[in-house]
Amino acid sequence: MEDLKPSPANSSPLTTLGFLERAATVYGDCTSIIYNSTSYTWTNTHRRCLQVASSLTSLGIKRGHVVSVVAPNIPAMYELHFAVPMTGAILNAINLRLDARAISIILRHAESNLIFVDYLSRALVLEALSLFPSHIQRPKLILITDDRVETLSPTVDFLDTYEGLVMKGDPGFNWVRPISEWDPMVLNYTSGTTSSPKGVVHCHRGIFVTTVDSLIEWTVPKQPVYLWTLAMFHANGWSFPWGIAALGGTNICVRKFDADIVHRLIEQHGVTHMCGAPVVLNMLSKLPNLKPLKNPVHVFAAGAPPPAAILSRSESLGFVVTHVYGLTETGGLVVSCAWKRQWNRFPATERARLKARQGVRTIGMTEIDVVDPESGISVKRDGSSLGEVVLRGGAVMLGYLKDPTGTSKCLKENGWFYTGDVGVMHPDGYLEIKDRSKDVIISGGENLSSVEVESVLYTHPAINEAAVVARPDEFWGETPCAFVSFKSQLDKKPTEKDIIEYCRAKMPHYMVPKTVVFKEELPKTSTGKIQKFLLREIAKSMGPLRSSRM
Amino acid sequence: MEDLKPSPANSSPLTTLGFLERAATVYGDCTSIIYNSTSYTWTNTHRRCLQVASSLTSLGIKRGHVVSVVAPNIPAMYELHFAVPMTGAILNAINLRLDARAISIILRHAESNLIFVDYLSRALVLEALSLFPSHIQRPKLILITDDRVETLSPTVDFLDTYEGLVMKGDPGFNWVRPISEWDPMVLNYTSGTTSSPKGVVHCHRGIFVTTVDSLIEWTVPKQPVYLWTLAMFHANGWSFPWGIAALGGTNICVRKFDADIVHRLIEQHGVTHMCGAPVVLNMLSKLPNLKPLKNPVHVFAAGAPPPAAILSRSESLGFVVTHVYGLTETGGLVVSCAWKRQWNRFPATERARLKARQGVRTIGMTEIDVVDPESGISVKRDGSSLGEVVLRGGAVMLGYLKDPTGTSKCLKENGWFYTGDVGVMHPDGYLEIKDRSKDVIISGGENLSSVEVESVLYTHPAINEAAVVARPDEFWGETPCAFVSFKSQLDKKPTEKDIIEYCRAKMPHYMVPKTVVFKEELPKTSTGKIQKFLLREIAKSMGPLRSSRM
Repeated sequence: MEDLKPSPANSSPLTTLGFLERAATVYGDCTSIIYNSTSYTWTNTHRRCLQVASSLTSLGIKRGHVVSVVAPNIPAMYELHFAVPMTGAILNAINLRLDARAISIILRHAESNLIFVDYLSRALVLEALSLFPSHIQRPKLILITDDRVETLSPTVDFLDTYEGLVMKGDPGFNWVRPISEWDPMVLNYTSGTTSSPKGVVHCHRGIFVTTVDSLIEWTVPKQPVYLWTLAMFHANGWSFPWGIAALGGTNICVRKFDADIVHRLIEQHGVTHMCGAPVVLNMLSKLPNLKPLKNPVHVFAAGAPPPAAILSRSESLGFVVTHVYGLTETGGLVVSCAWKRQWNRFPATERARLKARQGVRTIGMTEIDVVDPESGISVKRDGSSLGEVVLRGGAVMLGYLKDPTGTSKCLKENGWFYTGDVGVMHPDGYLEIKDRSKDVIISGGENLSSVEVESVLYTHPAINEAAVVARPDEFWGETPCAFVSFKSQLDKKPTEKDIIEYCRAKMPHYMVPKTVVFKEELPKTSTGKIQKFLLREIAKSMGPLRSSRM
Repeated sequence: MEDLKPSPANSSPLTTLGFLERAATVYGDCTSIIYNSTSYTWTNTHRRCLQVASSLTSLGIKRGHVVSVVAPNIPAMYELHFAVPMTGAILNAINLRLDARAISIILRHAESNLIFVDYLSRALVLEALSLFPSHIQRPKLILITDDRVETLSPTVDFLDTYEGLVMKGDPGFNWVRPISEWDPMVLNYTSGTTSSPKGVVHCHRGIFVTTVDSLIEWTVPKQPVYLWTLAMFHANGWSFPWGIAALGGTNICVRKFDADIVHRLIEQHGVTHMCGAPVVLNMLSKLPNLKPLKNPVHVFAAGAPPPAAILSRSESLGFVVTHVYGLTETGGLVVSCAWKRQWNRFPATERARLKARQGVRTIGMTEIDVVDPESGISVKRDGSSLGEVVLRGGAVMLGYLKDPTGTSKCLKENGWFYTGDVGVMHPDGYLEIKDRSKDVIISGGENLSSVEVESVLYTHPAINEAAVVARPDEFWGETPCAFVSFKSQLDKKPTEKDIIEYCRAKMPHYMVPKTVVFKEELPKTSTGKIQKFLLREIAKSMGPLRSSRM
């Protein structure tokens, strides 16, 4: 039995890149991409990707290089998810809502060899490059002119246009297969709710595992109609560019999230699936005069638990919402609130409470646990003992680029990936995230979740936004400090005392904010996440609170 | 980028064994298995498997041991697909239709440490053991008493009963995870259409890839109701024991294939999915007074292309048939006749012709091709150039047990697994199997497929069974020699000349059998496949034919 070892026939690298050729064989005449008045078949898409890969190779791009893209969810962005790794290079999709400084840092850190730039992000990227120190070589630039503008003659900054690469490329190009399934395939920078962005590297195998795992978890049928509400620059759109190719689906591309447009696209194209943060549902379900959908639309929602009101409203319209969880470090979702039939009998509030939990590991993940971060021992499965969420399995990243310390801090020698998220394990084995570990407040020895305090603050009729962080406290060590903004057009703004009293009536005393700071607006990242690290600095600069025992 | 390597958190072995614990978490109260009046929940099944694994470990079974099972599709057989590998041992499910001699050879070749024996196969296994040379140690025996007989007090031959192991086992058993995903997990002996059975070894990773691949290919929804018409001892029921656990489905176990019982189970339990050879559909659709099914039943059919008449009849009853292809060496299906929507517009005969093709690789397979076996060069994609079907991908076996020559003959250094099946590649990229390579007849330099000749013979109204092999020929090298049996109660049996003339009217001259041998019945393997190697010997012993040019 010991003689039997991997051999080339059974150990050829797992990769999602071969899905494209198969889609062209099986679904060649079917629509692969629709974007405004442009549409492609899988035969087109297969051919165009090979052409771009061929042209990139002619430009000197090869195995191990990094190719960046700054673009929204347009066809070129989709195609580059195949074309770039088909040259052996690593795809680096950059969040186009970042500022020039952040983009400049990423490009230098990634040592990008070439950047594809959407025409609307042209000034942004050129500014980012102008911030490069003069001795550093600038990457090559390719302009994506999109379908709605005339083909621009490329300026001196740009080597060529995207369609130029398509035209010049060889559709018979022999694409570069990975030598090992552990070869890097994508590089994604985290959006940085903590200050410094990190370059998450996934290999071909990791992306394969995440992709097939998500298809099974969602039971995606063949030829789904997938609407690109989730940006592909967020963890490669949770690996769905490859998943949709696996099933020969239709990708509905859309440049910008706009509730009206999205709603029209859903009805026009018979959308069956989409992903996004719960806020997407919120915006959609707030459209005036909304009629129920003609056909159900399956939604993977992640990033925050879908609030009960949004769930109930969007489900009544025909959205079938599954709450999932993942991180840039897992390439896509790895935990899903797998729904039990018997839960359908519960009233709406109870259903929402159950669905607010992140859930159980997907079948591609080996294990998940909530542990004491010091000892590594599992917390009680009681739904209240806080601990750090840890994972192991094929979807976990290779590591952070050029950051061995950061990598070994979360990919620990004990075989677990430490997510930095704080959660509880319910008695039924379902996980619920309570906070980012940095956001936990330790007051008088009690770990308290800032998210729980925030969720109470959000129920206050006058509050628009709320974020709670730790403020040093002479007696308690730390106490909760709330930053809130009010809704516009209030008759009477509540005072700090009003807010504290409101909280006292609704939560244990130790959780009640001892400080309340009013703000016009809370500071946010380009992806709309509140920047707690900034608030934490403000709270710290306020000095320790001299609170007394209560 | 080179620093980023596999680490314990991202490289934990891919295995299907963890599906069971997850099923118990998500589907704990739902029915896992139904068998006659017995039924279990996923909580029960999880617990029972851990108990059996614990008891096996107490009996000394450990990593690397082989545990055999001789049993039909009963709950114990299902559970052992988890319980045995959960001890680190390798599961060896043996075809119970083999004779004592064949079973004895397998048990000795596998060096089984322990055998689970269904009570009805008791005499067979004891006879097999009696054939062991006296110096060879006999494996331990555990009796499966099934649910319909009283618990037997185990005789001196048996160490315990299956339910005894369940009872004595520890449900808190810490199951043995594979150290590497390349660790062997199952050992399956081929049924031997060629004479000597071979021990096919699959590792955890291979079984994982096949299992998830099949779920995606078939778009199996959550909680399917799966009817066990396909024997689990055939390539582990194409890996569906693990697949059904992944989705928390219900396994309908059935001891024996009987069209009436199967039909009743379909309606009684709302079966959604089943697998089998086309003959299963044939038998079902021949039931008298059959009404259309209440709900559609999805069928994976493999082993032979489903004939047009059977397809049309079973589809009109509500069976949704997908034609797939795989070998014991691939653990399950790796090629599927992926259906195109536009094909639905074609008439039934054209649809049947398209569906008779094996199709395209599944997404888990890296590549598939049809090549000249000598040169390894791809044949023309013209639907008529014959070549050997070759594959590469994660589903391919580790190799044959204790047979390095046999292993290296098919897992070649050029990175391909040579299937021994002969096929053509159609211009649209769909594969069609024409024959086993050993069954190709080379007549006057033309490769001709014995299966094609047989398919014409089968259209003759008097012919019940037909098999065509090569007979040496002084002039042509080889010519087709047909062995046929007639239907019973014929008014007039056709002569050799009648058969030859019938063929002349329907096929090219070079394909027409030059010899026709009449038999009462053709020799078959225990799984009902005609043993062509025996017929080939008969044809050879008839001496070379002295045919003239025609």
